[in-house]
Amino acid sequence: MDVVGVLGGMGPLATIDFMRKVLDATPATRDQDHVPMIVCSLPQIPDRTAAFRGAGDSPLDAIVACGQRLTQAGVDVIVMPCNTAHLWFDEVQAQLRLPMLHLVDAALHEALALAGANARLGLLATDATIASGLYINRRLAGSPPVQWLLPTAGEMLEQVMPGIEAVKAGRLDVGQALLAEAARALGRRGAEVLVLGCTEIPLVLDATACGLPVVDATAALARQVVTRIHPR
Amino acid sequence: MDVVGVLGGMGPLATIDFMRKVLDATPATRDQDHVPMIVCSLPQIPDRTAAFRGAGDSPLDAIVACGQRLTQAGVDVIVMPCNTAHLWFDEVQAQLRLPMLHLVDAALHEALALAGANARLGLLATDATIASGLYINRRLAGSPPVQWLLPTAGEMLEQVMPGIEAVKAGRLDVGQALLAEAARALGRRGAEVLVLGCTEIPLVLDATACGLPVVDATAALARQVVTRIHPR
Repeated sequence: MDVVGVLGGMGPLATIDFMRKVLDATPATRDQDHVPMIVCSLPQIPDRTAAFRGAGDSPLDAIVACGQRLTQAGVDVIVMPCNTAHLWFDEVQAQLRLPMLHLVDAALHEALALAGANARLGLLATDATIASGLYINRRLAGSPPVQWLLPTAGEMLEQVMPGIEAVKAGRLDVGQALLAEAARALGRRGAEVLVLGCTEIPLVLDATACGLPVVDATAALARQVVTRIHPR
Repeated sequence: MDVVGVLGGMGPLATIDFMRKVLDATPATRDQDHVPMIVCSLPQIPDRTAAFRGAGDSPLDAIVACGQRLTQAGVDVIVMPCNTAHLWFDEVQAQLRLPMLHLVDAALHEALALAGANARLGLLATDATIASGLYINRRLAGSPPVQWLLPTAGEMLEQVMPGIEAVKAGRLDVGQALLAEAARALGRRGAEVLVLGCTEIPLVLDATACGLPVVDATAALARQVVTRIHPR
């Protein structure tokens, strides 16, 4: 059975959330049925958002070093449960030379299954994830194009970013109210499915709270891991 | 900064619970303040309780193999967030030749700090943990003796074991009621502090539910890890 390597610690709570989602997605009746994972949670990796803004060191070397520890520990496939870290995905993969599953591909795969070709997908994510084009420029090989709907700059500054900050600070009610408002605005502008491209957002938003089907990118990656290890 | 190796997957949910408790015990204001951990969660390790009963393979080789993966990944100290696995602690440590922190020592340390010398400690744990003497035969170097109070065989069969099973099956209300009953019986017989020596029990029992101060062995180990990495 393949061992999954998790490049984690970005942040440490998101890593734990991902592990929990792998557990929840696994058809298991006893410990031994669960997915074997080696998790390298090294929170000292430089801040990804600061690096994207040009205000901090690149995390690339630290991410690769973390991946090399996983390689030495004998993993067979690697995942990174952090959206922003995927800005360095291609460089990490080139240096590690192990198969890697891509978080955004996992989310797109589930969104297309939910909404079909030419789907109108709303995207809730951090400013850095949206501005970098991580989601909007990604295309699944052989899949139809999708249409993206984004929050306005005003919604980003007044609802999405303060909502994510509130969740990080443990003020879940405030975060939910702000993020649900941004979600409903995307729904009014025609989004058929909402992609939650930030590890904090699914902690407070679900389909009921936003009145739309949602795709939790972290959970989508967890399900891809389980499918790879336990093929049906 | 030392990297902590976690010998996990016994079971996988207990591993995640331990990681969460390390996070909660860490004085952190940003990702980079958190404890670096490499977690080997290999749930295929043979069942520890079955092996103790003589009804299954020994987990020793698999635990050591898991520890060797951690060694190859470059950890500095190793912990096992599983009570029953500590039956093989000395053999694992002898083969790995890395410093290891002992779960039961961490719990005893906190219990003595709470209750003082000659403390009367109640123990709630699985049949295998109690019968093996894992807790009752353990002595902290240089510490005063303690007095143990255990559930009766009837309480084990009617409250403690069914209570733990109910928690594992997600029936938390049932589990809490059964375990709280066993806890109160220990209190009536003179226990001053209750040691929760099973990863499932702290999920439903706290000091309020049992009317006694409690020591959560998993949380105690997590605090020892944080103290080692972030010495005050």
